[in-house]
Amino acid sequence: MEGQLPQKPPLSLYEPASYIMKLGGKRIRPVLALLAADSVNDFFENALPVALAVEVFHNFSLVHDDIMDEAPLRRSKDTVHQKWNINTGILSGDVMLVWAFECLNTYSANLFKELTSLFSSTARKVCEGQQYDMDFPNQKLVSQSEYIKMIQYKTANLLGCSLQMGALVGGLSKESSQPFYNFGVELGIAFQLQDDYLDAFGDPETFGKQVGGDIIENKKTMLFLLALQLSDAEEQKVLKDFFNTSPTDPVHKIEAVKKIFIKSGAVTQIKQMIKDYTQKALKEVESFPIIKEKKIIFMAFALELMERKL
Amino acid sequence: MEGQLPQKPPLSLYEPASYIMKLGGKRIRPVLALLAADSVNDFFENALPVALAVEVFHNFSLVHDDIMDEAPLRRSKDTVHQKWNINTGILSGDVMLVWAFECLNTYSANLFKELTSLFSSTARKVCEGQQYDMDFPNQKLVSQSEYIKMIQYKTANLLGCSLQMGALVGGLSKESSQPFYNFGVELGIAFQLQDDYLDAFGDPETFGKQVGGDIIENKKTMLFLLALQLSDAEEQKVLKDFFNTSPTDPVHKIEAVKKIFIKSGAVTQIKQMIKDYTQKALKEVESFPIIKEKKIIFMAFALELMERKL
Repeated sequence: MEGQLPQKPPLSLYEPASYIMKLGGKRIRPVLALLAADSVNDFFENALPVALAVEVFHNFSLVHDDIMDEAPLRRSKDTVHQKWNINTGILSGDVMLVWAFECLNTYSANLFKELTSLFSSTARKVCEGQQYDMDFPNQKLVSQSEYIKMIQYKTANLLGCSLQMGALVGGLSKESSQPFYNFGVELGIAFQLQDDYLDAFGDPETFGKQVGGDIIENKKTMLFLLALQLSDAEEQKVLKDFFNTSPTDPVHKIEAVKKIFIKSGAVTQIKQMIKDYTQKALKEVESFPIIKEKKIIFMAFALELMERKL
Repeated sequence: MEGQLPQKPPLSLYEPASYIMKLGGKRIRPVLALLAADSVNDFFENALPVALAVEVFHNFSLVHDDIMDEAPLRRSKDTVHQKWNINTGILSGDVMLVWAFECLNTYSANLFKELTSLFSSTARKVCEGQQYDMDFPNQKLVSQSEYIKMIQYKTANLLGCSLQMGALVGGLSKESSQPFYNFGVELGIAFQLQDDYLDAFGDPETFGKQVGGDIIENKKTMLFLLALQLSDAEEQKVLKDFFNTSPTDPVHKIEAVKKIFIKSGAVTQIKQMIKDYTQKALKEVESFPIIKEKKIIFMAFALELMERKL
């Protein structure tokens, strides 16, 4: 995948792009695109440009998000703006966004148009999702549906887009590939809720990030929103007070908040939500116009993703 | 043109985009796109989406460039990151870049593909040009050809792209519309050199920006590069020394540097370069596959642009 990167001047622009792409990651989006294409016509090779496009786009969004979040680390390595500077992060991100679109140039006109317009409408939603996410801290009240919309736009739609683009390249029409998109969206929401859960309750040994990071940053994740909803007035106050503090040593805060998450029933409920969204995803697979043996792969993928520890 | 902006939530994302578009400007890129389409088939209306795309893209680049340059003002008003904040500038810029691509969705598949791939390759060059521009201050030596390449990538290619996209929408083939692109590139270089000249020698009454701004910022513009080339060792030293200072009151520095620009022959030479590039642009018009009456419009446009005082 890294071999596809332009290695040309100005290196000060393309080196950071190459750097972030080489940091690795689960490559979920390209895998989904290739899986979808393969499931439709037993051939994944012609979906490689789509796979590259979605991964480049995803990495563009990481570079810009890391600037906005002032994150020093990504996959345990320096973020782009940390290693270089903010200007380099902005501009290298920009060129990756353009480059993601260019990856699709290899397709014939009709397919190109279908892919590009799906891709651009998804890309716009990703920006909107990031904006909602940035707006939450300044928002007095965040509803659960607002939160779901945020993670759908910021994360889930791109998974759906990766799958549908793969299916389109595989030869399906826009209509018959729609369940692939829906599957990705439901799965993406389940995935992101799982991420919220693991952030607080993951195994520090296997979870890549600092466990309790969201609690330290007072992030209004679904666990927090559920705990608020399920608590009485007194517990709500305790929780809200915790989310107004930033202690130097956060150990006590993390433990106390996690206890509230458990006691309030928020943990039980988020686990149910993850199951529900996974079920919705599995239901979409039934409508895939592909053979049964191939459907099983998507189902297994969805179930495995939900069992993940990292 | 502003009526075409998405007015939808999250407003914190789209309001800054709307703000920068409404600040105005010369609208050269959309005008060129419409002129080109009209010159080919006497009809400019179907080039409106192209006109919007290039103007939205141009404004995206202004928003991100202003962050990188830490510019507080744009067209005498607050820049986006100044009025809101850097994160808003980054993300609103991103969504404008995506949106620029989306503007082309109205065209049929074959035309869409031709427009989009021309647009994306141009967009990538704009990023490269901006990177070259950012690299110059850290570069010990900047050659005149490097400088020309920088302004070509950063500015001129997008003018060429606007014209060629208009011509394509008008019905020309990729090959027969190529002179429109070339015309824009030559004209863009002349335009940018003119900008360098006006920045130092423009009339403060009519020139929109602070006269002498480039000198204050020690920018290695073509005037500086020419003056270096045309000076003897002693004068070179004086000039270089000036470009290593940032006096609180820059009046003396500006006057002294302008004198060197004149005495060295740099002013005479840049005026000749502007003429040469304008001539090259005019020569391209001869190959436009359009009637003579329409060619005159482009020639007049080029000549007028070169006589501009702002």
